[in-house]
Amino acid sequence: MGAAGGPGRAGVALGLALGSAGLVLVLALAAWRRRRRPMREVLFFPSLPSCTEGLLAQAAGPEAAARPCPCPLPQRDCSLSRLLRLLLSARRSLDLCLFSFSNPQLGRAVQLLHRRGVRVRVITDEQYMGLRGSQIGFLRHAGIQVRHDQDTGYMHHKFAIVDQRILITGSLNWTTQAIQNNRENLLVMEDAEYVKPFLDEFERIWEEYNPINYKFFSRDSK
Amino acid sequence: MGAAGGPGRAGVALGLALGSAGLVLVLALAAWRRRRRPMREVLFFPSLPSCTEGLLAQAAGPEAAARPCPCPLPQRDCSLSRLLRLLLSARRSLDLCLFSFSNPQLGRAVQLLHRRGVRVRVITDEQYMGLRGSQIGFLRHAGIQVRHDQDTGYMHHKFAIVDQRILITGSLNWTTQAIQNNRENLLVMEDAEYVKPFLDEFERIWEEYNPINYKFFSRDSK
Repeated sequence: MGAAGGPGRAGVALGLALGSAGLVLVLALAAWRRRRRPMREVLFFPSLPSCTEGLLAQAAGPEAAARPCPCPLPQRDCSLSRLLRLLLSARRSLDLCLFSFSNPQLGRAVQLLHRRGVRVRVITDEQYMGLRGSQIGFLRHAGIQVRHDQDTGYMHHKFAIVDQRILITGSLNWTTQAIQNNRENLLVMEDAEYVKPFLDEFERIWEEYNPINYKFFSRDSK
Repeated sequence: MGAAGGPGRAGVALGLALGSAGLVLVLALAAWRRRRRPMREVLFFPSLPSCTEGLLAQAAGPEAAARPCPCPLPQRDCSLSRLLRLLLSARRSLDLCLFSFSNPQLGRAVQLLHRRGVRVRVITDEQYMGLRGSQIGFLRHAGIQVRHDQDTGYMHHKFAIVDQRILITGSLNWTTQAIQNNRENLLVMEDAEYVKPFLDEFERIWEEYNPINYKFFSRDSK
């Protein structure tokens, strides 16, 4: 039972120090792995036929949700309902940069967010915003800020950024034709390497399309 | 200088074991961090005006590269040249799923790859492939496999997959108008969460648009 029989004090201290260092490393590695992984999803279209009234009514409040939709379509998860849910998850801001926007369900979702106090900004294409069925007029009428190009080229982006954090982008124009009939894709992403450049692109275009830069032509000047 | 003076043998052994474990962890962590990060890029359009002849000539071989282009445009990096470089990096396969394809530079790059022995497959939209300036006829004439829809909806995807590994997708149709005049985006990505669903979508559409499924209408049947 002498000091020579068991490990010496210095040995124990060395062992403990090294053991602690190892433990800290293991814990750090585990914590790193537990970090929430960024959202990475792909949605394909055409979307399955489904009724999104319940989803929109639920988002509008308890009064609207009490009236069930009489349509015969099933209420099921589909690419459109997933897109709607992502948009409706916005708490602070929704930045839209859309070539063409005519789908009424998506229009209602955007108006709902605006009424809820979410800061909505819309950039769109001048030549497409005036087409029959466009939602842009309704959004403006509801008090949502809209800016557009005055170029001969198209403002052909089709992306949305939720709370400056979730980027939704792809081939999909926000039209019922595209949602129901076309082969389309949407990517949902939170990786900063993708989100940051799109945030910057949005701000760049938003400033470039500031109405103070618009040119107005009178008949006399033609 | 007895056993009681220095660290005991058991203590040293314990310390060494724990130290080794710590070292292994540190090395594993370092190796993990050194892993090549997946490519994550965003390209925006319109692309800067630039001459891509040198790039295409270099890819075509030493003979073509000897003749410099007489055009006055600068040979500089831009979104179009980056896209061309990514495509020309293909060694085994190039899968294209494009709504509209009329840009001659991109058409030449695809033909170059085909001649180099890269397996090129093209899926496109029936209504757009016959438009004036479309590259689809040239690609077919060169012996490249092309398949198309027969739907009323559009085959509106705009993606390319290089060597089943690099996905290039976004809002950009492969037209000169879009490259030179429009606000467009392209994402370059290697993350499996994005590449795999697009690979599957390509194979799904490729089978669905197999010519054995095409319907042919004669005048009599109208």
